[in-house]
Amino acid sequence: MPPRPRRSYDQFCAAARALDAVGDRWTLLIVRELLLGPRRYTDLHADLPGVSTDVLASRLKDLEQSGLATRRRLPPPAAAYVYELTGRGRELTPVLRALAAWGAPELAERRPTDAVRAHWFALPLLDAVALEEGLVELSLEEGDFHVRRGSDGTVSYGDGPAPDEPDARMTLDAGTAVELGRGTLSVADGVRGGRIAVTGDGPLAKALRDG
Amino acid sequence: MPPRPRRSYDQFCAAARALDAVGDRWTLLIVRELLLGPRRYTDLHADLPGVSTDVLASRLKDLEQSGLATRRRLPPPAAAYVYELTGRGRELTPVLRALAAWGAPELAERRPTDAVRAHWFALPLLDAVALEEGLVELSLEEGDFHVRRGSDGTVSYGDGPAPDEPDARMTLDAGTAVELGRGTLSVADGVRGGRIAVTGDGPLAKALRDG
Repeated sequence: MPPRPRRSYDQFCAAARALDAVGDRWTLLIVRELLLGPRRYTDLHADLPGVSTDVLASRLKDLEQSGLATRRRLPPPAAAYVYELTGRGRELTPVLRALAAWGAPELAERRPTDAVRAHWFALPLLDAVALEEGLVELSLEEGDFHVRRGSDGTVSYGDGPAPDEPDARMTLDAGTAVELGRGTLSVADGVRGGRIAVTGDGPLAKALRDG
Repeated sequence: MPPRPRRSYDQFCAAARALDAVGDRWTLLIVRELLLGPRRYTDLHADLPGVSTDVLASRLKDLEQSGLATRRRLPPPAAAYVYELTGRGRELTPVLRALAAWGAPELAERRPTDAVRAHWFALPLLDAVALEEGLVELSLEEGDFHVRRGSDGTVSYGDGPAPDEPDARMTLDAGTAVELGRGTLSVADGVRGGRIAVTGDGPLAKALRDG
């Protein structure tokens, strides 16, 4: 069966072409999850509450066909399939960061129907946290995630505790994370006010504490 | 009749909240058009080929309900209704710029079914053109648009010739505009290669010619 033709805006416009590739419902949230690194289908489904398995499978196929993600089999004993972004897929990071920066003020109200995952706080927090080269582990009541700034200035993040010894550990609650993401609170002010604990001895931990 | 409830991802995530507001099909392209300034419904419809009047009206209503756009009546003799972005709506500019930057390489191929408008080239070109404070008028075979950098560094653009005497005038073709948008050609190199003509005497015209 040939791949079904994708819907297009048929506009010779860079923004419209981008939306042809990633404008379908759920697609950019799937990219948000894949920014964490290679992920199994079941993990994607668990961290995208509300998506149907049909829609998730169809969007992943679209991402593969567009060259934005690939599927590969992990070596035994895992032997599971994982999805991961291609280089072109990772280039969507600025799009997600711009959306998160714009959407941060909309988190003023937490609704009873809202799902939440700790790593969803990563995108709006990157600027506030990845101040210097190094690895920061963040712990919220909702879980842990980590943020890394490489020597070339690129910023990435992952789910769960830091895979190596982190340069700084931050403990905070979700409300404080929201304010950091909005830019209405700095890490240093959060530390001074007792809302954020930062441990670590190196320059990154110092920069976080001192602002 | 109460407003119909909007669909939400129900995720306490800044990017998901942004997509709740602007993730519906066509919405960000409507914002692209409104970034030009106040626009009449008929003009919006003309510059969004492919959108149905039902969808356009519904999306405009959603933008109003979300506080991203307003509708107002122009004073006589015009007396037409125009739609325009609110401050919060204009804050979507970085989202559209990030999408356009990502989508610019997808313009390598121009398809026979593609519609085109001159001002659609503005978003990916802003960085290349708005080098200094001032007003630039750009002329393509497809039409004219203009780009302005204010004294505070904010960049805006509009359809048609510059409303005041521009500091620089640029003439180029669509293929050259695409390369500028991708960053594979600089304005100065385009001028040296005879693909771009820049007229004007001030610092902005000089910066464009000299790079």
